Amino acid sequence: MRMYDVIEKKKRGGKLTKDEIEFVIDGFTNGEIPDYQMSAFLMAVWFNGMDKEETYELTMSMANSGNRLDLGLINGIKVDKHSTGGVGDKTTLIIGPIVAALGVPVAKMSGRGLGHTGGTIDKLESIEGFNTSISTEHFINQVNDLHIAIAGQTANLAPADKKIYALRDVTATVDNVSLIASSIMSKKLASGADAIVLDVKCGNGAFMKDLESANSLAEEMVSIGKMAGKKMTAIITDMNEPLGRYVGNSLEIYEAVLCLKGNGDKKLMEVCNVLASYMLIFAGVAKDEAEAEKLIKETIESGKALEKLCQLVKAQGGDEKYIKNEGILPRAHKKIEFLAKNDGFVSKMDTELVGKACLALGGGRLTKESTIDLSVGIYLNKKTGEEVKAGQAIATIYSSDEKKGIDALGILEKAYSFSSDKPVEQISMIKNIVS
Amino acid sequence: MRMYDVIEKKKRGGKLTKDEIEFVIDGFTNGEIPDYQMSAFLMAVWFNGMDKEETYELTMSMANSGNRLDLGLINGIKVDKHSTGGVGDKTTLIIGPIVAALGVPVAKMSGRGLGHTGGTIDKLESIEGFNTSISTEHFINQVNDLHIAIAGQTANLAPADKKIYALRDVTATVDNVSLIASSIMSKKLASGADAIVLDVKCGNGAFMKDLESANSLAEEMVSIGKMAGKKMTAIITDMNEPLGRYVGNSLEIYEAVLCLKGNGDKKLMEVCNVLASYMLIFAGVAKDEAEAEKLIKETIESGKALEKLCQLVKAQGGDEKYIKNEGILPRAHKKIEFLAKNDGFVSKMDTELVGKACLALGGGRLTKESTIDLSVGIYLNKKTGEEVKAGQAIATIYSSDEKKGIDALGILEKAYSFSSDKPVEQISMIKNIVS
Repeated sequence: MRMYDVIEKKKRGGKLTKDEIEFVIDGFTNGEIPDYQMSAFLMAVWFNGMDKEETYELTMSMANSGNRLDLGLINGIKVDKHSTGGVGDKTTLIIGPIVAALGVPVAKMSGRGLGHTGGTIDKLESIEGFNTSISTEHFINQVNDLHIAIAGQTANLAPADKKIYALRDVTATVDNVSLIASSIMSKKLASGADAIVLDVKCGNGAFMKDLESANSLAEEMVSIGKMAGKKMTAIITDMNEPLGRYVGNSLEIYEAVLCLKGNGDKKLMEVCNVLASYMLIFAGVAKDEAEAEKLIKETIESGKALEKLCQLVKAQGGDEKYIKNEGILPRAHKKIEFLAKNDGFVSKMDTELVGKACLALGGGRLTKESTIDLSVGIYLNKKTGEEVKAGQAIATIYSSDEKKGIDALGILEKAYSFSSDKPVEQISMIKNIVS
Repeated sequence: MRMYDVIEKKKRGGKLTKDEIEFVIDGFTNGEIPDYQMSAFLMAVWFNGMDKEETYELTMSMANSGNRLDLGLINGIKVDKHSTGGVGDKTTLIIGPIVAALGVPVAKMSGRGLGHTGGTIDKLESIEGFNTSISTEHFINQVNDLHIAIAGQTANLAPADKKIYALRDVTATVDNVSLIASSIMSKKLASGADAIVLDVKCGNGAFMKDLESANSLAEEMVSIGKMAGKKMTAIITDMNEPLGRYVGNSLEIYEAVLCLKGNGDKKLMEVCNVLASYMLIFAGVAKDEAEAEKLIKETIESGKALEKLCQLVKAQGGDEKYIKNEGILPRAHKKIEFLAKNDGFVSKMDTELVGKACLALGGGRLTKESTIDLSVGIYLNKKTGEEVKAGQAIATIYSSDEKKGIDALGILEKAYSFSSDKPVEQISMIKNIVS
């Protein structure tokens, strides 16, 4: 087989076979196929797409390109949850403890933040001592003991995806639904869960800006997972404003604790409820959404969910005092308020700009090598649809550096739009459910 | 400017500016833009194409990427002729001496053969002593003295084209009209002629298989040349059978001499007449085709065209005895005849297979590094439309090696199709003229 012929076939709109796709992925991963042929191939895929079978084979080839995590030693039905990434998304930190407290094993591989979106691993590291680089043995034992462990992704999980993504990133071939779906799903399948609940973010702070593209990504990923024999659901959730009230690593741990203490933001908790419900249903703990929501409510009210977060933190070397008393979590000292000039309503938020304001504070990564300041962030006093009075704080910036704070304020001012009339209220954060 | 953004723009179907195209070509030529970005870009161009202005700018950027040949020191209007490549195409060797004998300066840069198509430089080297690597000074002085010089292309003429072509060749991005046109025209424009006559081959032995694609390539090249201020004509000529009766390097010199002696194959001479006529008209030597054809006829009949070929050979170190007595030109000794099994007519020829038969004899190059046997080749006793009797020779193979000869015979047998009825006669070799 020659790579030239595979490129030519895809260029002409042909359907690639399992063998051809494996040839491409194996050859590229082991260095036999050079970057320049792979990038021409990826561009041909961008134009002509891949059908569901090709996308499945691509995903499986990438999932098989390195080690697979063997979760066979973990008891029970392993349910994974994955978000496509947004601003202020701390759902894992809330849902994980809730479902684990209900006996569902949560073996979670998470990532770090990049660009305007954050990552669970960074957030957890704002808890002093918390170790996200635990051994596979520690990881599995901990899930069996506590039903929850959260660790960074090991390097050799789906290495083909890593190498291909790096090439797509510099050749303008990221934005293709088959390539995005296979990239996400190859890592999920290599992580070995039995069921996967996907949170596909949709809106101006997400990769998928509109419902149509979010739907097709969701359908593609659900299709791949089902073909691989997994239970699958994708929840399409709103990302036209940051999720919750806090953006920034330590601040998001703070908000997660508030949620587990029963004081969570309504919209954030709506998303958490739906995602956790599907995890409980897949795990066989709840028979339907109504039962699942009842269980979730009880687990929070009884303090069991918060206790589970404490156990998680302790088991991975962190100090649980930060959870019991969230007020002592690190928070940068310079406080700058964005004040309303006029009376009115928040009519719209540019979510990506809120993420960029946090980035400007040093709370995110421009490149994979950047170091980040975990204590900085933004509290959103006002969000879309809410009334503001002249002189009131719209948002509060926590910065370690005066200049960076001023820069972030400038970005934040552009992120908000106002109207004199009250905007139509959003009914639900859940835009669609694909299963 | 970032290469990423240029790729993204072309991927979205945008029209690139002069600056963007220059950025791509300069950056790729000097190594700042890596192969993997260039190949993604080329694939995006393959899908979304380039309009006439973009193709012109691409051509000019490539033409300007290295040295340009300064033909300012040559007296008169310099007319170049270029063929897109076919089988048995020895027109340069016939037209060159004819128009030079009529006072038109022929400063010809030619190429070597690759795959099933031959090259003028290889053919000339079958004349003992003929030097195709003469200095620029020698080249220019010779054109001023004799009105003709034929040399191999110097390495630094349009180096961007060379580098881009090498990448297209391995990434399935050769077959795009803008990329083909700009590749050919960049070299032509860097060679500095005032007027260019293009011979666009069309048929089963050519790159362009049908009239539609040949027309669009011709239009694209004529458009580029005119935008660059050149007089342009493209003649689309038939390549559904080899041009003339001989295929093979030394054998084609032999046939060129026959033509200059007035004994040329009718179809071959029809193509030569039209190409030479346009060259004479562009040079101001003839006012129209009728006058040009009259001049061509006289130049051959007077022996002046043949004498010009002798002068050319002598000036570049070759021995003119091979021209005066073409019978002593090298010809491989093993003669194998392809004999007709039945009475009938040649109904069709697969021209590419005839080229491949010659390749099998060692008369062509599979890769740029191959060495070739200049003495081998094929004489086509019968061509399309001609009657054959059982037992008659259809074609005659001249081989240096028994086994290679048998291999070539096997290929040649597949190249011919026969019918019992006489096929409809072809009216003309000229399929269209674009100017």
